[in-house]
Amino acid sequence: MSLDRLAINRWTCRTTPVEQLLEALPAAGIGSVGLWREDVEKLGLAQLRRRTDDLGLRVSSLCRGGFLTASAQADRASALDDNRRAIDEAAALGAPTLVMVAGGVDLADKDIRGARERVAEGVAAIAGHAEQAGVTLSLEPLHPMFAADRAVISTIDQALDIAESAGSPAVGVVVDTYHVWWDPYLERSIERAAASGRLLAYQVCDWNLPLAAEPLFSRGYTGDGYIDFPSITRMVAATGYRGDIEVEIFNEDVWADPVGTALATIAARYEELVAPYAG
Amino acid sequence: MSLDRLAINRWTCRTTPVEQLLEALPAAGIGSVGLWREDVEKLGLAQLRRRTDDLGLRVSSLCRGGFLTASAQADRASALDDNRRAIDEAAALGAPTLVMVAGGVDLADKDIRGARERVAEGVAAIAGHAEQAGVTLSLEPLHPMFAADRAVISTIDQALDIAESAGSPAVGVVVDTYHVWWDPYLERSIERAAASGRLLAYQVCDWNLPLAAEPLFSRGYTGDGYIDFPSITRMVAATGYRGDIEVEIFNEDVWADPVGTALATIAARYEELVAPYAG
Repeated sequence: MSLDRLAINRWTCRTTPVEQLLEALPAAGIGSVGLWREDVEKLGLAQLRRRTDDLGLRVSSLCRGGFLTASAQADRASALDDNRRAIDEAAALGAPTLVMVAGGVDLADKDIRGARERVAEGVAAIAGHAEQAGVTLSLEPLHPMFAADRAVISTIDQALDIAESAGSPAVGVVVDTYHVWWDPYLERSIERAAASGRLLAYQVCDWNLPLAAEPLFSRGYTGDGYIDFPSITRMVAATGYRGDIEVEIFNEDVWADPVGTALATIAARYEELVAPYAG
Repeated sequence: MSLDRLAINRWTCRTTPVEQLLEALPAAGIGSVGLWREDVEKLGLAQLRRRTDDLGLRVSSLCRGGFLTASAQADRASALDDNRRAIDEAAALGAPTLVMVAGGVDLADKDIRGARERVAEGVAAIAGHAEQAGVTLSLEPLHPMFAADRAVISTIDQALDIAESAGSPAVGVVVDTYHVWWDPYLERSIERAAASGRLLAYQVCDWNLPLAAEPLFSRGYTGDGYIDFPSITRMVAATGYRGDIEVEIFNEDVWADPVGTALATIAARYEELVAPYAG
């Protein structure tokens, strides 16, 4: 059936308790879920794994590692340790990949170049641990509007530069339509990612306007905004990508919808705008 | 003196009548102003030129042409005519360059690629007129957060691709820190612009957080946000750029400041964060 590759990121239904969301997924015909470390904290690793197994759910990804821009030595060591724990959690959940958000710029030095160098060093430092755990690291370019406070990785090309410099096949990128839809070199960079085996995940949601007061929450149901999902999905499919397609929406209105309504909307939009172009 | 190259974009003091702003500039030791077509409408071209001449002011730029993404034939023809008029106005004011904002995506087709092609065609169509008028066209990459509704040109590299495809030496780019500070390939793209003689203008203002309710109005006084002005100014200066450095701020708080206060703040920040690195 056409929902085969649809995965729901747990934050899409953030206001629904995770146990309830997991149960709602098979009922909606959805077989895959992207989890957050908060879910691990809440239920415990073993219990969370048991729930997904009992329900026959795949875990598409774990959110999130990263935040590697701190310059103080103690903060860096602690961030690396935390990332190694996140890798272990992903492995224990059967998640193939850990989504990595780079971290932002320190207002004290405003040194975005230095922050980017520290991200590259941090990724290289944990790549071996990921390889041993059988987990990939999906570096996530975030929209440039988050470069200051959230992620100094802003484009797929930049993420690939860092991935390649880590010298490990375990490091790649996640393509999230919200963050990269505007990129003039999108098709070329998606091809580059796939050509080096580093196109690890594909996430979809729309760019809605006006921006929400918290811009992070402007992610909309596919079809509600400006993004051309057939075109971008074709670019991804043309590379041979046949993995999960994860819907990750942060939106107060979506969170206000009952979970069944939200999942039905997501599934219908997916069947209309994504699945026919996904290969 | 160190304010020699400082120019004030007219919108920085948007709430001050243009005649009053023009008079305030020499009093603040500032010799250059970036004007808007609204000022031309208000005072008339001859009168506006007379005022700047009488005050000994240079006109650093005219804002703005562009908005070339419409797909309907009549709309395209009308946009081209309007751009030719804007070029003529820039020439009449003695402004060396017309700042061009590309225009956004049509929500009816969501075709950003098509919109970009129409921008390239439109720029090529008016480049000859600009050459004859002795005015350059400064394509302005806007922050990707404006790609949907305002400008489908998002990076310096992309602007240069379009400029080069126009086949005219009159087409180049304006580097505005607010829009491009996050670009991982910033230094390389600034060098590329200068190497082909297409680095036409440099505008400065800061990236403030949190974003304003109207994100366009999040532009702050240099030094108030996340941008490293010494570093970016050094990149620009290293190419040999010695033109005006225009301060363009859209910010409700700045507009609430008395014009003398705003100009004094801008001048002090310029002398601290920009002038020492400007070559």
